[in-house]
Amino acid sequence: MKVTIIGLGLIGGSIARSLKRSGDVCITAVDNNEQVLLDAVSLGVIDRKASVYDLEDSDVVYLCLYPDAALEFTEKNKNRFGKNTVLTDVCGIKTYIYPKLKAIADEAGFTYIGSHPMAGKEQSGFSASDASLFYGASYIIVDNGENNEAVGILKELALRMGFGKIVFATSDEHDKAIAYTSQLPHVLACAYVLSPMCSKHDGFSAGSYRDVSRVADINAKLWTELFISNKESLTDEIDTLIKNMEAFKSLIKEGNAEELKAVLQNAGDNKRKYG
Amino acid sequence: MKVTIIGLGLIGGSIARSLKRSGDVCITAVDNNEQVLLDAVSLGVIDRKASVYDLEDSDVVYLCLYPDAALEFTEKNKNRFGKNTVLTDVCGIKTYIYPKLKAIADEAGFTYIGSHPMAGKEQSGFSASDASLFYGASYIIVDNGENNEAVGILKELALRMGFGKIVFATSDEHDKAIAYTSQLPHVLACAYVLSPMCSKHDGFSAGSYRDVSRVADINAKLWTELFISNKESLTDEIDTLIKNMEAFKSLIKEGNAEELKAVLQNAGDNKRKYG
Repeated sequence: MKVTIIGLGLIGGSIARSLKRSGDVCITAVDNNEQVLLDAVSLGVIDRKASVYDLEDSDVVYLCLYPDAALEFTEKNKNRFGKNTVLTDVCGIKTYIYPKLKAIADEAGFTYIGSHPMAGKEQSGFSASDASLFYGASYIIVDNGENNEAVGILKELALRMGFGKIVFATSDEHDKAIAYTSQLPHVLACAYVLSPMCSKHDGFSAGSYRDVSRVADINAKLWTELFISNKESLTDEIDTLIKNMEAFKSLIKEGNAEELKAVLQNAGDNKRKYG
Repeated sequence: MKVTIIGLGLIGGSIARSLKRSGDVCITAVDNNEQVLLDAVSLGVIDRKASVYDLEDSDVVYLCLYPDAALEFTEKNKNRFGKNTVLTDVCGIKTYIYPKLKAIADEAGFTYIGSHPMAGKEQSGFSASDASLFYGASYIIVDNGENNEAVGILKELALRMGFGKIVFATSDEHDKAIAYTSQLPHVLACAYVLSPMCSKHDGFSAGSYRDVSRVADINAKLWTELFISNKESLTDEIDTLIKNMEAFKSLIKEGNAEELKAVLQNAGDNKRKYG
């Protein structure tokens, strides 16, 4: 098995580390930062720096770049992918990127399948990458159902990386779900730490402050792209949240204990039921 | 040293467990649930069930009840506290409870000092209590500055429980800070899991979903009291958050990447600066 990773950041680096640990696989990689490639080779995380020829005979190429950079790389190198190479991206949005990458792949005659490893950290870069980042996490595959063999290869590799669950979704289902499960908590965390009270939390805060603010240590460039590429679903979720918060605000202001308790109970029931 | 704990729930139980582990202290306790008292004795967490006479000769009495129940207990037993007994509550709000408890104590002639152990869990009850719950956490003391000796005793016991920091605040400072650091994240978590998308998160969620929703597994009765007792500060913080979220929403909707990135950068800077 031969794999090429484009971009050895948090996700690309973690793919390399986890696959390398799982056994026999040849890994080549591309990164703008030469030092990262040297480090990755000396740590035994990749076999060597990739050349353009490696796109030809890799079983899988993982595009671990920001959305626009992923499109640009693929467009530029479309004629270098082998007919049996499976290209997959790891972007956090799909409606924006899936049809574009699919069109390039179809035109050039190789297979593209979307994927999204549902794991992350507030830190970024190769030095934050981790062989156990994906343990037990969910691996989402976006595919039109025509590529059973290629999907099989991606699934096998995902299991070798330690993923605990493999889920299929359309681009649209993916983006609606992600708007809620991932993008909204990032917007929330950032809105939260912009309160003037943030500077005074020390000594007065504990777990709930820590948890809601964790992802505010954000990669601004990446998330700007992700938020704007999924604006419709995300602003819908922001609206729902604001509406729910306004309802809480009214009940608290009125001192309506009975109703407030019922709504809190309802929220608690949801959390206990859906996890 | 003799300590009496009124209410062996998550906090009262954790006080008992952590003090008992720290060395020589006699602990008696009151709880509505006889089985909890039997369990606590058989686990060696308390020495025995308290009688009303234990209020007389305890060095410290920890009121670990919900706010209204704490007031009721103190009013009912005010003449049973010894002149050298220090009463302290552990309530999450202070403007509401501090002047009332202070008035009762002043009238009956014993010392009252407010406190708030800044630690918790989404679970409640004695069985969730934990000797290490307070490790490294902050212990907030609300006092008018007249009770140096009594404050000294509370500090010593807090250090024995494992707290990492002792902070002083007025009731008002306390409630403003807590509205932001603790109450707002609880409102947020509950508002978040009330989205219709919550039922579909499985397979599409990871750390950011888990963290923002964690405290939605809420004790509805307790938090209803806490929210309504601190309505002014809390609704101010809800307003600030909604305002910040509206700003994000507009930038995302407009696709204003430059400005969005700047605001995210600003939020990230706050998080990295203030922790």
